[in-house]
Amino acid sequence: MISRQEAQARARELVSQMTLEEKATQLRFNSPAIERLGVPAYNWWNEALHGVARCGTATMFPQAIGMAAAFDEKAMEQVGDVIATEGRAKYNAHSALGDRDLYKGLTFWSPNVNIFRDPRWGRGHETYGEDPYLTSRLGVGYIKGVQGDGKSGYLKAAACAKHFAVHSGPEANRHEFDAIINQKDLWETYLPAFEAAVKEADVEAIMGAYNRVNGEPCCGSKTLLKDILRGKWAYQGHVVSDCWAICNFHQTHKVTSTPAESAALALENGCDVNCGSTYLNMLQAYQDGLVTEEQITASCERAFTTRFLLGLFDEDCEYNAIPYTANDTDEHDALAREMAEKSMVLLKNNGVLPLDPHKVKTVAVVGPNANSIGAMRGNYYGTSSRMTTLLAGIRAYCAQHGIRVLYSEGCGLLNPTVEFMCAANDRLSEAIQCANHADVVIACVGLDETLEGEQGDQSNYSASGDKTTLMLPECQQTLLNAMEATGKPLVTVLAVGSSLNVPQGDAQLVAWYSGQAGGTALARILFGEVNPSGKLPVTFYHKTEDLPDFEDYSMKNRTYRYFTGDVLYPFGHGLSYTTFHADGFTLRQDAATVSISNTGDKAGETVVQVYARNMTSSFAPPRPVLVGFARTGMLWPGETTLVEVKLDKNAFTVVNDEGERVQDGAQWEVFAGLCQPDEKSVQLCGDEPLRMEIEV
Amino acid sequence: MISRQEAQARARELVSQMTLEEKATQLRFNSPAIERLGVPAYNWWNEALHGVARCGTATMFPQAIGMAAAFDEKAMEQVGDVIATEGRAKYNAHSALGDRDLYKGLTFWSPNVNIFRDPRWGRGHETYGEDPYLTSRLGVGYIKGVQGDGKSGYLKAAACAKHFAVHSGPEANRHEFDAIINQKDLWETYLPAFEAAVKEADVEAIMGAYNRVNGEPCCGSKTLLKDILRGKWAYQGHVVSDCWAICNFHQTHKVTSTPAESAALALENGCDVNCGSTYLNMLQAYQDGLVTEEQITASCERAFTTRFLLGLFDEDCEYNAIPYTANDTDEHDALAREMAEKSMVLLKNNGVLPLDPHKVKTVAVVGPNANSIGAMRGNYYGTSSRMTTLLAGIRAYCAQHGIRVLYSEGCGLLNPTVEFMCAANDRLSEAIQCANHADVVIACVGLDETLEGEQGDQSNYSASGDKTTLMLPECQQTLLNAMEATGKPLVTVLAVGSSLNVPQGDAQLVAWYSGQAGGTALARILFGEVNPSGKLPVTFYHKTEDLPDFEDYSMKNRTYRYFTGDVLYPFGHGLSYTTFHADGFTLRQDAATVSISNTGDKAGETVVQVYARNMTSSFAPPRPVLVGFARTGMLWPGETTLVEVKLDKNAFTVVNDEGERVQDGAQWEVFAGLCQPDEKSVQLCGDEPLRMEIEV
Repeated sequence: MISRQEAQARARELVSQMTLEEKATQLRFNSPAIERLGVPAYNWWNEALHGVARCGTATMFPQAIGMAAAFDEKAMEQVGDVIATEGRAKYNAHSALGDRDLYKGLTFWSPNVNIFRDPRWGRGHETYGEDPYLTSRLGVGYIKGVQGDGKSGYLKAAACAKHFAVHSGPEANRHEFDAIINQKDLWETYLPAFEAAVKEADVEAIMGAYNRVNGEPCCGSKTLLKDILRGKWAYQGHVVSDCWAICNFHQTHKVTSTPAESAALALENGCDVNCGSTYLNMLQAYQDGLVTEEQITASCERAFTTRFLLGLFDEDCEYNAIPYTANDTDEHDALAREMAEKSMVLLKNNGVLPLDPHKVKTVAVVGPNANSIGAMRGNYYGTSSRMTTLLAGIRAYCAQHGIRVLYSEGCGLLNPTVEFMCAANDRLSEAIQCANHADVVIACVGLDETLEGEQGDQSNYSASGDKTTLMLPECQQTLLNAMEATGKPLVTVLAVGSSLNVPQGDAQLVAWYSGQAGGTALARILFGEVNPSGKLPVTFYHKTEDLPDFEDYSMKNRTYRYFTGDVLYPFGHGLSYTTFHADGFTLRQDAATVSISNTGDKAGETVVQVYARNMTSSFAPPRPVLVGFARTGMLWPGETTLVEVKLDKNAFTVVNDEGERVQDGAQWEVFAGLCQPDEKSVQLCGDEPLRMEIEV
Repeated sequence: MISRQEAQARARELVSQMTLEEKATQLRFNSPAIERLGVPAYNWWNEALHGVARCGTATMFPQAIGMAAAFDEKAMEQVGDVIATEGRAKYNAHSALGDRDLYKGLTFWSPNVNIFRDPRWGRGHETYGEDPYLTSRLGVGYIKGVQGDGKSGYLKAAACAKHFAVHSGPEANRHEFDAIINQKDLWETYLPAFEAAVKEADVEAIMGAYNRVNGEPCCGSKTLLKDILRGKWAYQGHVVSDCWAICNFHQTHKVTSTPAESAALALENGCDVNCGSTYLNMLQAYQDGLVTEEQITASCERAFTTRFLLGLFDEDCEYNAIPYTANDTDEHDALAREMAEKSMVLLKNNGVLPLDPHKVKTVAVVGPNANSIGAMRGNYYGTSSRMTTLLAGIRAYCAQHGIRVLYSEGCGLLNPTVEFMCAANDRLSEAIQCANHADVVIACVGLDETLEGEQGDQSNYSASGDKTTLMLPECQQTLLNAMEATGKPLVTVLAVGSSLNVPQGDAQLVAWYSGQAGGTALARILFGEVNPSGKLPVTFYHKTEDLPDFEDYSMKNRTYRYFTGDVLYPFGHGLSYTTFHADGFTLRQDAATVSISNTGDKAGETVVQVYARNMTSSFAPPRPVLVGFARTGMLWPGETTLVEVKLDKNAFTVVNDEGERVQDGAQWEVFAGLCQPDEKSVQLCGDEPLRMEIEV
């Protein structure tokens, strides 16, 4: 058993025995051992965005954006719990052998709760999408799962909300970029998920972002770290810098002149742990009078508080008993499949889906993402021992049902030529012939981390990883056009982490980067074993030209709350093989209830969405805002269920221009249903949300 | 229906209507269309070493060296037949859409019947091993399969025996290398497989090698192409150059001074088709008086004879009817699995294999080749739509039997660090913990084409692709030592294409590069569903220091026929889970018969091997030579079968120093059994071959 107070006391006691030099070493991500005090080495850097990452074999869940599409806070908590179980199993196994290397600790630098405000951002697929409330709920779910139920006081593992704050591209200039942001957008859009992580989930770590915000570099920002995080929010955990972000202070942001000054700026604002090497200059900063021993001690105590809370020095920590065999289990694989199934979004369907396994004799599976590992894993991934590609999943299903599969890669992801020295589109005739000989074409297209990813990743085709267009690479468009021209029913599957504009397809599914069981999940959805229930956590736009400049951080004309133009597919959209009808909408302060009926002929589940709009306040966003969501659970044809939707505690507030959350204007309209209450959403969904006016 | 005479006549007739310029264009590998004559474009370059390669989806058989280990001429013919079926299905489908690109024709530049005389050769895994007779039989089998039964006279596809001749490394200097070779070695070792391909299998194409032989560049060698191939052997097919081999004449071999001279030297010696661009200078060569129109015409006629024999201009060719759906079928996959099962060689076994699926609860699968696609495909591969890695195969089997699988990559293939920025051996503790929690460790180690491959391939770690050692890369040795140190039973699986010296393992299996069904095959062997029956087609040496210089093409102290030192595992070696006993050896001129009994307690099959040694001739190689082999078929415990082993028609001849095959010395000893008649082989095999002396 341990409490934060106890951990803090033990940290104080331990740190009090350290020399200044020793304390300084413990602020580096790769903290060395202090043998005389029985302190082992500890590497703070570990990753677990959608499964324990970069640490060998682990269950790989769908990429974060895909899990977001499940709109399922409870499931996110289960995922977080599995991640912590696997992380513990690995930590126990590794540390028993003295292996305390990078990526082998219990401080997971996930989740990424940045707002995916622009579809061009290469790392957008690491996030839970564009909505602050959805992001808050899923972040809280994930963090609670990772950190455990807290009964003994020990953390199962430590989560880390990142990147604090106002961080969503461009990747190319992230090390020198200054995000200029007004207080309303800051508090309404960019901070809520961090605030929820701190206040509701007691997140143990916060990572500062690379960029500046209104002139201050995030990892040394008085405003963000002192005034807001530790001031307003009374945050008790530790702060870590993004990797090699502190050297940006003098190298690229140029707000300091020397490494020692940069270290000092970060430390004095409460950045406790440095991913990077700038804190190697901490003693220099001390000698230069830039930092005090008290500051070093305070950060060191916060770091050790986390280590005590993780039970790293205690034999009674219940998580020490998690065996290595708790890693990569069949049960975890089943959860990965369930998440993939819940995550996939049916954008459109003229009736071709679901495929009837008794009628379909031959399917053509084509496209560069059909048999691609990259299309399954997004970024920040571990090693799956049981990766089922989209093709492999379809083949396995078809093998059981006597259905022939014809496969063609079709083209490269970006390159029209697959085989060295061949002509452009060298797989096109193969793909056409697959289609010609099939009853239906399943075209698996999209992107992967080489086309949307992180700045500096060696795998990026471009330096930055950002997208420059919402269209598929030209060769994939050529492929889809050719498939369409065969006249065969065409199902387009988008393995992607963001908004794409793909016109082709009698039916279109967004599979996201679907993790190790993605192929199995896709097959079950295609053939109707599972009814799709995912909803878009981001707006799908027509084109980048409809959007503000990528570097403009104002929310004006961004995301479903502020975008006023026509969209391709709205936030919250996602079809089913059955039809649902909402009825009997009631509202309390903290919850709505809606009666949902399955009015179609197939079992399925869906997501009830509640949106609210202040009808008079000048601070209200132009369009209704998500304030609640809940999965219905499985409904059989004809079945009705009463769904209680918990509401955002800030549901009936607005954020004024000073960034204050206030009640301004008492008249609200509230909508509950299966989509947003706008024309396009309703047209796609086919069922208008229920509307109620209330006075708050 | 067509005959060669008819095809030749039609070729003559067609070519007679061409201008000189047109004829010259038809000698290039990418022959353009001649529309006025109704001649479509044709790209001569296609590959099919172990399945149709570089042309999209196709069944991927084990790499050639693995298929050689099956010692099964009939199965090679089946494989060749499947390749031709798939090649035709693709050709029909592609050409119907006007797609006549590179790798889309019916002239397959396989098999590679070079002699794998030195384990360092990076391309050795493309061959059928080190023995001329085994290589001849398997080459003939493959070619017959590819070219079809000939009933209608049409070729199902055209095979190509390569690289003619005396070509087996080094890769690094292949474009300037001069293989110095005596006549005895030439005729005894390097030429027989080509002679068999021509005389027994009517191979339709021969590819000249890059190197020189005794001063003459192979693609322009009067000795090889005129005197031997078209002279002594009366070869009727066409000759193609290796790719960009003819420009080597002036650029690297420096036997000519200009492209025109190089083109002329190749053409005048009968190299009909140029893979490369040197024949773009053919008209220049003509204008310079270096070649005659008759020479151009003759080569053009040979090229078109092949195209007519392929039925490319005929509607009655029965192979035109092969539909696209004949590609990548379940039946072909089953043959790929059967070949993989027959190919795997059990080097040693202390009884740990087969694993009992009812007793084993947990297996650890570790190693960089466990879940590697590269470890399945060797080189010159197509795209499998159903690749089952070793791990995937084991997992699928274990899932059916309730056995837990723990997986760790263990290390990189060459790099001890798997994760960027981590310490060396960063997966070692994971692998150890997998082992610690398992009943048995299956370590999948070895190489892939990045470590043994072809010169110039971008994927090579080194420029050349040759091996410099017979040891595993150090990180893999470290992994195996760590696995051994756990004390758990250790099964070492070598995914490799050549001789490696790997000491670790209670049991050791050579899986080769096992193709798309390799994982399924391996699992069935590990758990005793299939009894291993593969035999080494190459000697496994202790170390390269035991061998002559790599550039020395003399057979002295090379391969089992001439190597006199101690070997690690002999040519022909391969254990079974049961024991066999040979008895009742009789001999006719053209066949031996042996009675084989399964004296153990498990069903299985094996390979009967017959070796002969002339007891008096000074031209006899130092050790008995393989003159016959045959698979027994499945034998149940206690079952006995009489196996007839067809003998090499040259079994009782020797090759003298002039390269003449002669009868010299009448006294022969002949051995029949389950291994070579030497001490090491017998010690490993446990059953001494039967011996007979005869006078011929």
